[in-house]
Amino acid sequence: MPPFVHRLRVRYHECDPQGVVFNSHHFAYFDVVLTELWRAAFGSYGAMVASGADVQVVDAAARFHAPARFDDELELAMTVARLGTTSITSAFEERRGEELLVSGRLVHVCVDAKTHAKQPIPDDMRRRLAPWCETS
Amino acid sequence: MPPFVHRLRVRYHECDPQGVVFNSHHFAYFDVVLTELWRAAFGSYGAMVASGADVQVVDAAARFHAPARFDDELELAMTVARLGTTSITSAFEERRGEELLVSGRLVHVCVDAKTHAKQPIPDDMRRRLAPWCETS
Amino acid sequence: MPPFVHRLRVRYHECDPQGVVFNSHHFAYFDVVLTELWRAAFGSYGAMVASGADVQVVDAAARFHAPARFDDELELAMTVARLGTTSITSAFEERRGEELLVSGRLVHVCVDAKTHAKQPIPDDMRRRLAPWCETS
Amino acid sequence: MPPFVHRLRVRYHECDPQGVVFNSHHFAYFDVVLTELWRAAFGSYGAMVASGADVQVVDAAARFHAPARFDDELELAMTVARLGTTSITSAFEERRGEELLVSGRLVHVCVDAKTHAKQPIPDDMRRRLAPWCETS
Repeated sequence: MPPFVHRLRVRYHECDPQGVVFNSHHFAYFDVVLTELWRAAFGSYGAMVASGADVQVVDAAARFHAPARFDDELELAMTVARLGTTSITSAFEERRGEELLVSGRLVHVCVDAKTHAKQPIPDDMRRRLAPWCETS
Repeated sequence: MPPFVHRLRVRYHECDPQGVVFNSHHFAYFDVVLTELWRAAFGSYGAMVASGADVQVVDAAARFHAPARFDDELELAMTVARLGTTSITSAFEERRGEELLVSGRLVHVCVDAKTHAKQPIPDDMRRRLAPWCETS
Repeated sequence: MPPFVHRLRVRYHECDPQGVVFNSHHFAYFDVVLTELWRAAFGSYGAMVASGADVQVVDAAARFHAPARFDDELELAMTVARLGTTSITSAFEERRGEELLVSGRLVHVCVDAKTHAKQPIPDDMRRRLAPWCETS
Repeated sequence: MPPFVHRLRVRYHECDPQGVVFNSHHFAYFDVVLTELWRAAFGSYGAMVASGADVQVVDAAARFHAPARFDDELELAMTVARLGTTSITSAFEERRGEELLVSGRLVHVCVDAKTHAKQPIPDDMRRRLAPWCETS
């Protein structure tokens, strides 16, 4: 199944004195892609929250294969690597052309949008994420 | 009257490929100093909000005289340049040793902490800000 | 003459606990728009630097009329308000639909790309910026 | 052996609309602590680079146990978990009082400060990092 893909361009202030994107910004990029996937799946992140479910990050990891630089146009590909009872594991790959720059992972837990108590992933959310799930 | 002074050190990720602090971060520095002034005046920003008053930025300006660099230890000096009926104008000077790097200004309006409606600056806030007011 | 226009979407991490874009990020947005104007005028910022000229910010100002929020799609319009001998004044307006959220200004000085010494704006740069100059 | 400890205070603009520090900023905090450890070990990061060695991040990971909030005073503890031939693995724990908020890890490779080619960790660097190495 094809991943969800979003393109973005590296901003000047995201680059450090070594001339490359500072590592923490890649995690912000992952979040941008996830926001776009919520848009594709729910209409928007806001619409998901309005449906009663929200998510919180519990785990983040990235491997940096090659640096991204100012003005690079990056392609970020995301899949849902695993849907547990309450947790969503997202996998990310960041490329400039064919070259893999960063691979990473975020784990979110599903929470009640109001109380922020952990809750099972609603069936509706499972259905909406299905197009990008590696396994079902 | 002496200004309110706070020191901070430039972080690596705040510097851009030219090796200097990217301009927008200086406005974040101003906010850090203001937070410390709220601490001196009220105990904390949270205590001010608990007292019923909050502030919102309506105007920001800075002049960049010389660049700040990674690991520089900066001295930020702040005064309350003007207390209007509803607005607070803060003036900032950022120095490395004797050298003036940045001068700037933020204008906030006072709002009700709950409704966020504009309101006159409470007398209690005026009294607490008095030690750093250029004119009274 | 029509301004240069660039659209961008507010990212989650650019919003603060009040739920609105933190003031300093608007200056980063201005820089994103300027980068896109360099692309339209020169091919890219890198191409401009390769031509021997670079710019440095000396002055920044913004007025915040209404808050921008997460996931808002913003339209940023930029004109070159003034071309001095060595300085470029850019004017920005940030809108969500018809609503003006932020208006602002950056002043850059032109410097030699290698020595970073101040230099007159090259004729070639003047010609390339002409399409967006308010006065000529 | 006791870890290297650095304290910092959460800034307003590092918190997101959920009122908590956005995940990517914790990786920037890790970098701040590392900078302070370079200061303790070498005098400064700049002094290390001047000695001929530099480092680049190749791997980053964090687990978020509990949220950090605006104005929290955090204690970050760092140890050098492993010194390989060319790589340095740093382990981080972020606490508010006794409560563990974040645990994480950065892996750097040692590079020549000029060519940025991977190189073995110099003996001098090994000696200077020894006080914070979990195993030797």
